[in-house]
Amino acid sequence: VTISIHPVPGLPEIRSGDDLAGLLAAALARAGLGPEPGDVLVVTHKVISKAEGAVALLVGGEDAAYRRLVEEQSVEILRRRGSLVIAKTRHGFICANAGVDRSNAAPGTAVLLPGDPDRSAHGLRLALRRLTGVDVPVVITDTFGRAWRKGLVDVAIGVSGLEVILDLRGTRDVQGRELKVTEVAIVDEIAAAADLAMGKAAGIPAALVRGLAVPRGEGRVADLVRPAGEDMFR
Amino acid sequence: VTISIHPVPGLPEIRSGDDLAGLLAAALARAGLGPEPGDVLVVTHKVISKAEGAVALLVGGEDAAYRRLVEEQSVEILRRRGSLVIAKTRHGFICANAGVDRSNAAPGTAVLLPGDPDRSAHGLRLALRRLTGVDVPVVITDTFGRAWRKGLVDVAIGVSGLEVILDLRGTRDVQGRELKVTEVAIVDEIAAAADLAMGKAAGIPAALVRGLAVPRGEGRVADLVRPAGEDMFR
Repeated sequence: VTISIHPVPGLPEIRSGDDLAGLLAAALARAGLGPEPGDVLVVTHKVISKAEGAVALLVGGEDAAYRRLVEEQSVEILRRRGSLVIAKTRHGFICANAGVDRSNAAPGTAVLLPGDPDRSAHGLRLALRRLTGVDVPVVITDTFGRAWRKGLVDVAIGVSGLEVILDLRGTRDVQGRELKVTEVAIVDEIAAAADLAMGKAAGIPAALVRGLAVPRGEGRVADLVRPAGEDMFR
Repeated sequence: VTISIHPVPGLPEIRSGDDLAGLLAAALARAGLGPEPGDVLVVTHKVISKAEGAVALLVGGEDAAYRRLVEEQSVEILRRRGSLVIAKTRHGFICANAGVDRSNAAPGTAVLLPGDPDRSAHGLRLALRRLTGVDVPVVITDTFGRAWRKGLVDVAIGVSGLEVILDLRGTRDVQGRELKVTEVAIVDEIAAAADLAMGKAAGIPAALVRGLAVPRGEGRVADLVRPAGEDMFR
């Protein structure tokens, strides 16, 4: 099946309390992307956080205030190098600066991660269903670094309406042998794919993915986080 | 720009010495996907390895022979848990079982990683250019686990014709602030996106990605590997 990924242009700068679902539904309609069954909407967390008011003022020296904020948003600091902090957030995500970000933020502010991104995704999905009549799964993304490889990729930090993992255990390959690769983190692959269409500098914070053959479900990105006891790399 | 991802069906089972470029060009043509400028071809490493003869016979007890092969293909073992080995390969990749894989392999064999996947990608790109008249960048993928997150995602292990990282340093956001997220590992995002269209169980080992707005270049996945001295998580 061919998959297509459509950037959703024309969202205004989002402020606390904005009706993000209404703005997204309008932007989708203007782009001729009235959602169809099977579509998945991918939204960068930044607009979610801004709409939810998960934005902090940097009071006093901005750099020092930013560093304090990163510590505040961390439940554990895994590594430090220079000004870079690799932290575990209260969601269990391990990422640079606990996900606190000053780019694409108003001057003197920093954007935090949403408090409960799976819940945010669920709320947005329900609101979009009311507005459009179509139940479109929602994936919320952020941009994370990785161990061992340079560069950053978008990953899912919240989801509603999909399984997070495509579980192929027991599936056989074309030779009839059971697949070894059994658990594909499809929400992360969807997040990465959508980023290719958005473009960070262009400031397009949403994309509609059409034609995905992935199972609907009620997965949570919270369940993608590997418990510390199972994790071999902390 | 809308991106589309087209699975390339109809490749036969690949054997050592097969003309993979010829088979891919024919499959693309049959699928109506005669490549266009701007397309990127994504191929799972398994067909590359098979065509190059990077396949080992498992002689004697298959499980024991497999475990010996994994050790042979490793230059460093980072972690062991039960029968799972997280190893560094001679390419510098850190992955399960040093990339040695028995699924989608003929009975009694295991497929290895290509010896030099960037070089394999380059050879395939040149051969496809001769056959089709179009210079299509090539990305070779494998499926890797990650630290901290469950599930696996496809990543690039070889490339020709693209930059591996989209370098946004110095780029400004819509508010005029320099982007903090500056180095997007676009080849890994392309690999993940293509996997969504292929489907591991369906055994479709290639996809054509159309509409990507990413810079052409002569990047190498070898340069995505974080040197041990810079890596905080070994």
